[in-house]
Amino acid sequence: MEASVFAHPTALVETEQIGRGTRVWAFAHIMRGASIGENCNIGDHCFVEAGARIGNNVTIKNGNMIWEGVTLEDGVFVGPSVHFTNDLYPRSARMPEARSRYEDKSWLLPTTIRKGASLGAGSAILPGIIIGEYSMIGAGATVTRDVPPHAIVIGTPARVAGWVCACGQKLDFFDETSTCIECGRHWERSGNTIRERELEKLSL
Amino acid sequence: MEASVFAHPTALVETEQIGRGTRVWAFAHIMRGASIGENCNIGDHCFVEAGARIGNNVTIKNGNMIWEGVTLEDGVFVGPSVHFTNDLYPRSARMPEARSRYEDKSWLLPTTIRKGASLGAGSAILPGIIIGEYSMIGAGATVTRDVPPHAIVIGTPARVAGWVCACGQKLDFFDETSTCIECGRHWERSGNTIRERELEKLSL
Amino acid sequence: MEASVFAHPTALVETEQIGRGTRVWAFAHIMRGASIGENCNIGDHCFVEAGARIGNNVTIKNGNMIWEGVTLEDGVFVGPSVHFTNDLYPRSARMPEARSRYEDKSWLLPTTIRKGASLGAGSAILPGIIIGEYSMIGAGATVTRDVPPHAIVIGTPARVAGWVCACGQKLDFFDETSTCIECGRHWERSGNTIRERELEKLSL
Repeated sequence: MEASVFAHPTALVETEQIGRGTRVWAFAHIMRGASIGENCNIGDHCFVEAGARIGNNVTIKNGNMIWEGVTLEDGVFVGPSVHFTNDLYPRSARMPEARSRYEDKSWLLPTTIRKGASLGAGSAILPGIIIGEYSMIGAGATVTRDVPPHAIVIGTPARVAGWVCACGQKLDFFDETSTCIECGRHWERSGNTIRERELEKLSL
Repeated sequence: MEASVFAHPTALVETEQIGRGTRVWAFAHIMRGASIGENCNIGDHCFVEAGARIGNNVTIKNGNMIWEGVTLEDGVFVGPSVHFTNDLYPRSARMPEARSRYEDKSWLLPTTIRKGASLGAGSAILPGIIIGEYSMIGAGATVTRDVPPHAIVIGTPARVAGWVCACGQKLDFFDETSTCIECGRHWERSGNTIRERELEKLSL
Repeated sequence: MEASVFAHPTALVETEQIGRGTRVWAFAHIMRGASIGENCNIGDHCFVEAGARIGNNVTIKNGNMIWEGVTLEDGVFVGPSVHFTNDLYPRSARMPEARSRYEDKSWLLPTTIRKGASLGAGSAILPGIIIGEYSMIGAGATVTRDVPPHAIVIGTPARVAGWVCACGQKLDFFDETSTCIECGRHWERSGNTIRERELEKLSL
């Protein structure tokens, strides 16, 4: 473990794969085999399982469990107690009736949270889903299918309710383009796809 | 405590009623007076209250609180951070206005999770409810009434959305019978009741 | 810290502002700068952040995180794992794209839970909201706007579904007045406002 990694005295940090500047807070438990990037913040009472992959600059608020099969790309925000999953039809593997289901890992469905996305407090993310970059999941939402980049989704099941800039500012699209009133980035939308506008090209 | 019970060094296991082969993980707390069967797995940051009753072969993922009045029968799966309850109209018992409500235990409503049922991540289970055997509660669902055996229920409030085998495989009913494509068990449905089919009798 | 404050041996109590008779249970963490009143009960695995303000006679069940900006007035009940928030459009402050958002604290929205209110298990409370006195939030509900005093709200988004007495008993209004069948308090309703009826005046 890098000397620049901070682990609270009560934290259990068992992995060797943890980048410099990352901080792990009280009563958190990081298993051997978890992979965590640089400059992350992992709050109290979190659990990171072997096989979970976490990028750089990720903020994980308290009480989260990042399971095997879950990938958090760079800059992701995980609000308090987000409910990740990796099995669509879970059973107790200890129960004889379900033993065949857990003989191999075909039950394991991956979940990917793309760069810069935010997951609201207490949201539930079904397995096998891709959450698009810079999207934002409302508190308490239940996400049952892929989320487009920059979308704001809310409710159960989660539906698109708006669009949001990389910086966190809500975007208004009056036509296919929008300029963020907070950070000045320019975006263009085509259907459910938002892309940053390359103004240099346009101004030629 | 049986020698074959495993308790993580940071776990607090205060009950004597815990069966052989059961494992209790980091920062979990099992109170004196909780009853836990054999061969269970209780994840990090769980809490089991005095008066809770847990059968054999039960899997309890991380961050769960099993309150007094909650019974988990054999083979139950409790996903991450399921929200159990035991009081339909809770108040702070310390508040003078509510003190009469907590003079006896008439506020306490039992919850029973029948054999082999699965509770999805972050689901909420209202008190006084029976969750039928081998049923499956979707992640993020809010369960406000009894759930039939083998039913898949989703949403807020939770509604029946399908049927599932003891082994975890989704069942299709084209008529009143269904054979699981995964484990080969035979089922028959009559209204909201699913029963295993006794093929020996039928073949006579 | 008052001698009469109880802290479980595994709890971390770093604040000096904690009233007499308050109890803090296993693996809980109270930060320096949090303010907590008298005679409260704070369950296992809770986290109270610097800047959070908690009154007297408050019950906080296990697994709660009380953030900066959240105020719990006297007699509040916080069910298991309630999801508080303080940022409507959260981003990882470590991500360069969002750094401007966190240069000052204009992102921080306060949440106030008024005297005697109850928050159900796993409910999510959006930031910037006032939850009225003696109201009751259903388990699993997502609260997206202010809640009137004494209202019962359920669902996602939460809607008013009934009315409740200070003592926790459901109230029936057949006209503009109601007498609690449990504690005998008299209430009058005008639109969405419930007030205790001053019978002495009426009887003059």
